[in-house]
Amino acid sequence: MKSGLHFLLAAKCCEIAELQQLTLTAELVDASARLVHELQRERGMSNLYLGSAGQRFGAERLAQVAQTAHAEQALRQHFDQLDTQATQLRQGARLFARIAYVLHGLAALPALRQQVGRGAWLPAQATAAYTRLIAGLLAVIFEAADTASDPAISRLLVGFFNFMQSKELAGQERATGSALFASGQADDAGQQRLTYLIESQERALEVFAQFAPGEAVALWQRSDDPNTRAALERMRRMLGATVAGGALNPELSQRWFDTCTERMEAMKAVEDHLSKDLRALCHQRREHLGQELQALDQVPTSVLPVGLDFFDATPDGSPSPGLPLGTQLQHSVLELVQAQAQRLQAMSAELDTTRASLNERKLVERAKGLLMAQRQLSEAQAHKTLRQLAMNQNRRLVDVAEAVLALADLTTGTVHPHTDAATHK
Amino acid sequence: MKSGLHFLLAAKCCEIAELQQLTLTAELVDASARLVHELQRERGMSNLYLGSAGQRFGAERLAQVAQTAHAEQALRQHFDQLDTQATQLRQGARLFARIAYVLHGLAALPALRQQVGRGAWLPAQATAAYTRLIAGLLAVIFEAADTASDPAISRLLVGFFNFMQSKELAGQERATGSALFASGQADDAGQQRLTYLIESQERALEVFAQFAPGEAVALWQRSDDPNTRAALERMRRMLGATVAGGALNPELSQRWFDTCTERMEAMKAVEDHLSKDLRALCHQRREHLGQELQALDQVPTSVLPVGLDFFDATPDGSPSPGLPLGTQLQHSVLELVQAQAQRLQAMSAELDTTRASLNERKLVERAKGLLMAQRQLSEAQAHKTLRQLAMNQNRRLVDVAEAVLALADLTTGTVHPHTDAATHK
Repeated sequence: MKSGLHFLLAAKCCEIAELQQLTLTAELVDASARLVHELQRERGMSNLYLGSAGQRFGAERLAQVAQTAHAEQALRQHFDQLDTQATQLRQGARLFARIAYVLHGLAALPALRQQVGRGAWLPAQATAAYTRLIAGLLAVIFEAADTASDPAISRLLVGFFNFMQSKELAGQERATGSALFASGQADDAGQQRLTYLIESQERALEVFAQFAPGEAVALWQRSDDPNTRAALERMRRMLGATVAGGALNPELSQRWFDTCTERMEAMKAVEDHLSKDLRALCHQRREHLGQELQALDQVPTSVLPVGLDFFDATPDGSPSPGLPLGTQLQHSVLELVQAQAQRLQAMSAELDTTRASLNERKLVERAKGLLMAQRQLSEAQAHKTLRQLAMNQNRRLVDVAEAVLALADLTTGTVHPHTDAATHK
Repeated sequence: MKSGLHFLLAAKCCEIAELQQLTLTAELVDASARLVHELQRERGMSNLYLGSAGQRFGAERLAQVAQTAHAEQALRQHFDQLDTQATQLRQGARLFARIAYVLHGLAALPALRQQVGRGAWLPAQATAAYTRLIAGLLAVIFEAADTASDPAISRLLVGFFNFMQSKELAGQERATGSALFASGQADDAGQQRLTYLIESQERALEVFAQFAPGEAVALWQRSDDPNTRAALERMRRMLGATVAGGALNPELSQRWFDTCTERMEAMKAVEDHLSKDLRALCHQRREHLGQELQALDQVPTSVLPVGLDFFDATPDGSPSPGLPLGTQLQHSVLELVQAQAQRLQAMSAELDTTRASLNERKLVERAKGLLMAQRQLSEAQAHKTLRQLAMNQNRRLVDVAEAVLALADLTTGTVHPHTDAATHK
């Protein structure tokens, strides 16, 4: 019959196995972040190439395609190394489904490049296609962040994901602004989109600053060069303040692109730092758990805690004040069991807090998607609608999102799954 | 190189593996619920035995001990069958730690019975000891509910857990009321505790009604016999309305006990129903996923989706309206990938809603524990404090709990884990 100590050891082994899994995940996140960065560069160059009717960035684009292919190969190798037989992986289903989606996107990449090379697509079309593939890669990282059950690692991943998200929004801002400057005139939809992209970037950066380690946040603050920043803000203001239809200086297109690019390269350096942090943290936690396991292994299995000690400790696992805290072996196993339960409880509480930020994100995204579909709004318009509702009602964005979704459930008469499980396809 | 289809199949296999795991969990939940029921009966009889100074319930208690031992053996067998080598189990660490705790509690059970048999303990002491062991068993079921990632099953488990919780609170109400009646006079602490137990029962039953299948809810409504109910409410009123120190009729002690017991037996029948539902649902979902896997297996692996279709569908995975939805094989794999991603997304959204209720519970329990520790309050007093705060501020109980915990974090200067990971013990 298995003893309490046996299950205590098994619990520790579970934690270690999960950390090993997280170490693999950290590598996957790193490789995904690299590919995202190369795709962002390729998207920018494709944009300029198409915008200049193939006159500029021809050679740079081809060089970049080779570099993207390199990052793609590296990520594919990580995918191949994933143990798809290990069907017991936490969230395995969702992670694998995201990867399947990305692989289909990557398979379509050569055809996309052909369209760009032939100048068959408008810049906006090419941008949208690259953006979709990048969104698929970010979803892989989101699943990874949602999977971690070590709170410290989960916090880091949430910070990392939000930083990548803000970088991607910065990339979209670069593309949208480039197109506006290049066209020579301001337009309402473009300006709305820029407002949305800037606001969402800032929100994501706030979450990053809240969850990422202080060092990484400080690095980002240092590397956000004041001159680049001032130049960016000046051009942002031009784009925003010009009345719709008003003239924009097309000459600024290149300068805008370069300034945004400089900022994105600085962001890449922060990503590399976060990635190193993540791997170091996984390693550290792994070592620590290994030591704990060793200590547990040395407890003689013959020592069985019997008697009434169990009922003397306080329910949360801490020994009651009156109890002599000793080195007696009989106590010690019970203490270990209680300490482990307490530690896991505290971890789970920590984790709830971190996950809450991911859940809020999901809710806002879903409410936005719903508004886009139901009212035929752009992402920028849907975002603006939610924000205005929140401001008018003096509520948090996530509360408004929840209300929007609840209302939709009500009006579409969503059926709870347990009542239609039999017929559910 | 692994294809998108490969990962799609792997995702499906993950879902199936998890469901197999859930099927085992369902059996564990069933066996735990049975042992909880027997322990509740044993607690009640021990109480009456001690309360009558060993004059009554001597034989019944011994017969019940044998019955409890039977349920204990059955649960231990389930524990033994758990694959503790499968360290990749979702939430394995927490589940195993809970089981370790329960096993230590079970090891202490003979000593507890000895104390009762010798009449060495007060009824309140014995009640507290049994209650702690039962709480450990309920925690096992809570972990199981927190683990399920199929939303329908998760809903059922949340309903089940809350029903078990309300039954346990009813059991504690039985014990507290018996002691009050037997003592012949009302007292403030006992009355506060009864109020707390009744309110918490009702809250748990509301959550049950919200999450459990309609049939189980209807069964509970039918089996909550109006006569039993009326008798219960009358005696509850006597217990509550008598001023502290006022006389209670000790003769009613037995009638109170029997009435409460009748109600708890009706609750057991609902538990059995829920347990059957749970196993049926696991089986049904398992069959359904098996069929989906079979369908996927028949997709020829030679068909690779290439070209620009990937960029034509809408980002949430549904095909764009203009796209000819055909039987073409090239489309079909992409469609499957998108359908799977969409389905998992919807499942995850559903799940967030269900889990939210578990998280709220955790927050309220933690805030209560904090108040009890910091201000030396009883559980009833801590609950009352939270409820009054909520009423005064016109906020939900969970919001007040969150505020209490946030304040404690602030005043104790809780350090975020990533900053002290290196020194964390």
